[in-house]
Amino acid sequence: MLSEFDLIQEYFQRLHHAAPPPVALGIGDDCALIAPTPGLQTAISSDMLVEGRHFFAGEDPQRLGHKALAVNLSDLAAMGARPVGFTLALALPSADRAWLHGFSSGLFALADAFNIALIGGDTTKGPLNICITVFGELRPGQALRRNAARAGDDIWISGTLGDARLALAGYRLELKEPLDAASQRAAAVRMHTPVPRVELGVLLAEQGIAHAAIDISDGLIGDLGHILKRSQVGATLDVDALPAGAILATQDTALRRAYTAAGGDDYELCFTAPVASRAAILAAAASVATPVTRVGRIEAQAGLRLVDADGAPLDLQLSSFDHFTS
Amino acid sequence: MLSEFDLIQEYFQRLHHAAPPPVALGIGDDCALIAPTPGLQTAISSDMLVEGRHFFAGEDPQRLGHKALAVNLSDLAAMGARPVGFTLALALPSADRAWLHGFSSGLFALADAFNIALIGGDTTKGPLNICITVFGELRPGQALRRNAARAGDDIWISGTLGDARLALAGYRLELKEPLDAASQRAAAVRMHTPVPRVELGVLLAEQGIAHAAIDISDGLIGDLGHILKRSQVGATLDVDALPAGAILATQDTALRRAYTAAGGDDYELCFTAPVASRAAILAAAASVATPVTRVGRIEAQAGLRLVDADGAPLDLQLSSFDHFTS
Repeated sequence: MLSEFDLIQEYFQRLHHAAPPPVALGIGDDCALIAPTPGLQTAISSDMLVEGRHFFAGEDPQRLGHKALAVNLSDLAAMGARPVGFTLALALPSADRAWLHGFSSGLFALADAFNIALIGGDTTKGPLNICITVFGELRPGQALRRNAARAGDDIWISGTLGDARLALAGYRLELKEPLDAASQRAAAVRMHTPVPRVELGVLLAEQGIAHAAIDISDGLIGDLGHILKRSQVGATLDVDALPAGAILATQDTALRRAYTAAGGDDYELCFTAPVASRAAILAAAASVATPVTRVGRIEAQAGLRLVDADGAPLDLQLSSFDHFTS
Repeated sequence: MLSEFDLIQEYFQRLHHAAPPPVALGIGDDCALIAPTPGLQTAISSDMLVEGRHFFAGEDPQRLGHKALAVNLSDLAAMGARPVGFTLALALPSADRAWLHGFSSGLFALADAFNIALIGGDTTKGPLNICITVFGELRPGQALRRNAARAGDDIWISGTLGDARLALAGYRLELKEPLDAASQRAAAVRMHTPVPRVELGVLLAEQGIAHAAIDISDGLIGDLGHILKRSQVGATLDVDALPAGAILATQDTALRRAYTAAGGDDYELCFTAPVASRAAILAAAASVATPVTRVGRIEAQAGLRLVDADGAPLDLQLSSFDHFTS
């Protein structure tokens, strides 16, 4: 039987992969050690994924390994921090080799794409639960804070929105007209394997061309709401300008509006920036091959005003996802 | 109904408690920010506690808040790092106000004792699971590594061992002669509210008077075994010299030997140090009112030899706790 020690050694401790600086000591002691790059701050974020809540029971472990790290990297991206490493705490019903192989493959494929190391953590028996804490670095004063939006700022969105929510609706049989199998599969890629917008976030912070940012995990309207509240400003959002995912774009207007504005699980960046930054933002986004779209304006007047393509008010009656009230 | 946002604001975000440096930004944005003290390394450790595995279902939430943070601080202590902050990821079956009040009280009482801040985390619905990641600081080269024991070193133990295991045996009705109620309660204090040996660990590291260290969570023999393996050394351990907890000390020899040598849940430090450090170690321990006891010797010959008070070999047939094979 696979012991906790063997499990860690076999699946998570990669002895021939030296952890890149600033990691000074990785897995295997009471603590990991980071030697912070002089002059930089450390950015830290934790996310916990629970079976049946954040993913279906029986979810493919390789996709799960990817997603668990991706949603954490997305938080670093939203702050504009460059990832350096992460810890993993894992509760598992049993030490299943096939599951562990798949999970660690998905996890390390994404970690390797960003050249970051798993530096420590914990494994235990229990209902499936994945808790990752990520570490990144950035220059003091460069963080993209939620409280930094200013009246007159443009509101920007990276990539596209809503396909993850559309896939979920498909799985839940919530759609009046079900998707064909190919469309369901294509939309589900966005749900299962989100791509954190790390390069874009880092460029926005390093070039000082954006003010506030947040990653869209619970739906744009709710997440943008955090920026508005913290920044003590309001906004007008052009709902028809929201970039819909490739599959959602083929659906009717009501569904497109609902899922782009309040879908959730998008892991795109919503950021605000002065009008003077427009050209620099388009250049930065192009340099990392990440589409960006202007979708509204920050205003001094409190509240979020939704409008359609003609500027007419829209009342979508949407709400953001909350873990304890839904 | 309590939303996730309200829950965090009400129980975990202490607006009038400014986080002490080096924390630069606490709860409320995509990431927390630490401005590392120049010249110091950051030590990081994560522990996950699962209901029914690390604590009984229905455990008192205040004690649980204490213990969840204490076991993490114990990892910093074993490295010799000074704590600076922590993140908390929490899965809860429901947003129960009484539970949250108790849990956060226990958590913050211990955090305040060490003047450290909760800087971020996550809350979600799910089977009760508590994942804390702690951060500390220390000078490069001062960490008490598991691989640093040398032949000729003394083996030391802080505090006393075995009362936590004795309390568990009492709860599980494993004892031939049950404890009286007062003894069960006294032993249970060690099980429910361990005190991390942070001050001692920091002094040992800062004064450079110890070589290797580990905290005793899975039982002394197993945890000392990690030091021996990593350091490529062996040891002789005087089992009768192991300092038994106050209640365990009143029990018979077999129970005392078993629970001091391989009890678990002690959260004391086991460290090795050269003979020349003896006076300095006793002085350091006295300065932080932490008893320490010499219990054996590191030797070049591989393997762990258990002996009794007369130096005669003991075969205790003990094993350390493992989460996936037990």
